[in-house]
Amino acid sequence: MNILVVNAHPETKSFCSSLYQSAIATLTESGHTVTTSDLYSLSFQPVSDRHNFSSVKDPDYFKPQAEEIHAVEHGTFAPDLAAEMAKVEQCDLMIWHFPLWWFSVPAILKGWYDRVFAMGRFYGNGRFYETGMMRGKRAMLTLTTGGPVEAYQPGGFNGDMNGVLRPIQRGMFEFVGFSVLAPQVAYAVAHVSDQEREDLLEAYRARLRSIDNEAPITVGSY
Amino acid sequence: MNILVVNAHPETKSFCSSLYQSAIATLTESGHTVTTSDLYSLSFQPVSDRHNFSSVKDPDYFKPQAEEIHAVEHGTFAPDLAAEMAKVEQCDLMIWHFPLWWFSVPAILKGWYDRVFAMGRFYGNGRFYETGMMRGKRAMLTLTTGGPVEAYQPGGFNGDMNGVLRPIQRGMFEFVGFSVLAPQVAYAVAHVSDQEREDLLEAYRARLRSIDNEAPITVGSY
Repeated sequence: MNILVVNAHPETKSFCSSLYQSAIATLTESGHTVTTSDLYSLSFQPVSDRHNFSSVKDPDYFKPQAEEIHAVEHGTFAPDLAAEMAKVEQCDLMIWHFPLWWFSVPAILKGWYDRVFAMGRFYGNGRFYETGMMRGKRAMLTLTTGGPVEAYQPGGFNGDMNGVLRPIQRGMFEFVGFSVLAPQVAYAVAHVSDQEREDLLEAYRARLRSIDNEAPITVGSY
Repeated sequence: MNILVVNAHPETKSFCSSLYQSAIATLTESGHTVTTSDLYSLSFQPVSDRHNFSSVKDPDYFKPQAEEIHAVEHGTFAPDLAAEMAKVEQCDLMIWHFPLWWFSVPAILKGWYDRVFAMGRFYGNGRFYETGMMRGKRAMLTLTTGGPVEAYQPGGFNGDMNGVLRPIQRGMFEFVGFSVLAPQVAYAVAHVSDQEREDLLEAYRARLRSIDNEAPITVGSY
């Protein structure tokens, strides 16, 4: 498989970045072709604006989606975006590594999605969900949390993790046609022992060695 | 009241920005003290990293929350963050204006939250939800969508808007203690007539004239 591995943690020594590095190593050893987007290392700029484009459709009124369709037709996405778009289009599986910040992805990753997943290239013209343009590809979240697993159950302190992740897994991934693999959640990683962290890494590596054969989950709606 | 009015749309002529401008005008006319954060005009930088701080606790390992607590103790948040933090702390009501991008806020607004709502200053040490540090303040979302109202019902094309907004209203606002006012949602604003847009603005202005007396909603968990 061609696998795009994304990271959105600011610290290369963090456990999240260790999961990211483990994924690259394990998937490469398994014979896959691995492409990476380490967003902090790339100094990826997440603010969606006219810098997304090297041309202008309407200089007086910036409508992001209209400019996106114009850029699809004229091949005028900014070079940094064009490179990221090609990575997504060429992958069979996309895995995001990130710390859960405010029940969502860090801004650098939200902006990567805001800017890269352009209308007319990744969705639109009646192609959403079951008929989405990314159909046949799979996507997966690998995240770290501050709180413990008990906090993310239905009725728990922070509520069901499936609900927390639904706007991402349903609203981003399934919206454009990705099938979703079960999220890999490493809970409370700042509060566990070195041995437990090593066990979490090994469990992740073991899972990734047979990721080819894993069946998607049903995310469900709101 | 002291009211903090935030905007996260890149185009000043957009309907979202018109809602923002209407809020400033109406709330000022009603006698409130209005403070603003127009994030695109501010060129707000949403990537959370060492630029959040003017001092360093651990130069070898960047742990965002540990650095936040250090910055609270030493008064060493970066000036742009310190200014935004003061605005939040001084407000009685905070209103966000934004276009719904990928079932969430634009990256510039996510990063504003990631960076401004620092541990030790806005939450932590057992102060969350009902005992949150922002208790007594209210917060509200004013958003525009591409899809129509039918798409955002339970069982609808995109699913229940309350579920879409829960990670924000529950996971950001209520987590730090804000009471939540009902979201003001302007659906499919690119596809309605000028008269309908004017009606939406007038309904918003009418609501804001008596916002002092509005009771919070129950957001609910996942």
